[in-house]
Amino acid sequence: MTEHILTPRPLTAEAFAPFGEVIEVADQTAVMINDGNTERYDSLAKVECAGEGDVAVINIFRAQPRELPMRIRMMEKHPLGSQSFHPLSGEPYLVLVANPVEHPEPKDLQLFLAQANQGINYRANTWHHPILGLNKVCDFLVVDRKGEDHNCDEFYFDDDMIIDDPTLKM
Amino acid sequence: MTEHILTPRPLTAEAFAPFGEVIEVADQTAVMINDGNTERYDSLAKVECAGEGDVAVINIFRAQPRELPMRIRMMEKHPLGSQSFHPLSGEPYLVLVANPVEHPEPKDLQLFLAQANQGINYRANTWHHPILGLNKVCDFLVVDRKGEDHNCDEFYFDDDMIIDDPTLKM
Repeated sequence: MTEHILTPRPLTAEAFAPFGEVIEVADQTAVMINDGNTERYDSLAKVECAGEGDVAVINIFRAQPRELPMRIRMMEKHPLGSQSFHPLSGEPYLVLVANPVEHPEPKDLQLFLAQANQGINYRANTWHHPILGLNKVCDFLVVDRKGEDHNCDEFYFDDDMIIDDPTLKM
Repeated sequence: MTEHILTPRPLTAEAFAPFGEVIEVADQTAVMINDGNTERYDSLAKVECAGEGDVAVINIFRAQPRELPMRIRMMEKHPLGSQSFHPLSGEPYLVLVANPVEHPEPKDLQLFLAQANQGINYRANTWHHPILGLNKVCDFLVVDRKGEDHNCDEFYFDDDMIIDDPTLKM
């Protein structure tokens, strides 16, 4: 058994583009609406619902904080829909994704540190780890697909993967 | 010209049910997922996209704070889709809706004070006022419908409507 240690890098739209969208104001251009009272940062992410009769739903996920270093054993993906997470509790969180291969290997993994003002949207079929909250119990607003048919593939690693970040307060 | 003064009442799922959903954990029951690490408060709101080829999108609205008392001149509704707002800046906000009549009158209006942990989802065709942030510039995560065809009806009041809340810090 080999151990592979991953440390996160900052989450940016460019680095995350192969996996989905970063939902943040950042350097986006807004459309002014509501008589000049509101800036609309439009279509930062698209909700994918591939199945017949699917609907998009809005949920809240309440996540326990993870402790680092943390052993990673599996990844999952949703073939029929995107899934977005937006932090509601003012804390950063970790985003672990893998390149679009059938069986992710350590070299396919990418770990990002998302800030409290950054949401993310996993495109359909993007390998990702279940939500990785930090520091305290955190709520996330989640937009995903609801419908019939199987919509969760899982992959378990042979090797042990450990994620860590010595710079994070724990 | 007659003036009508509206003061808000607390936002509850029951009171808001004719207009849409309140997106909050409150007394909802969760499903445990992710090996016991996450509570999923499932399908708190459904995203409506009525048109052919419509997609749901995720946006950020950055709203200027409103000052009370405030004069209300118009309401709007979106016939082809729902529109949800979730506060991201830790401040309460006002939610002004009207009963489903063609031409809302003062008696048809309902004003709610939403707390910083409460989102709302206007069902398609629900008369509502553009977002009413309070206290400071506030961001809201907005999920709504994107597509062709006309999707915004507006209604302008003959009478002047004033909303106020003497209990709010301004």
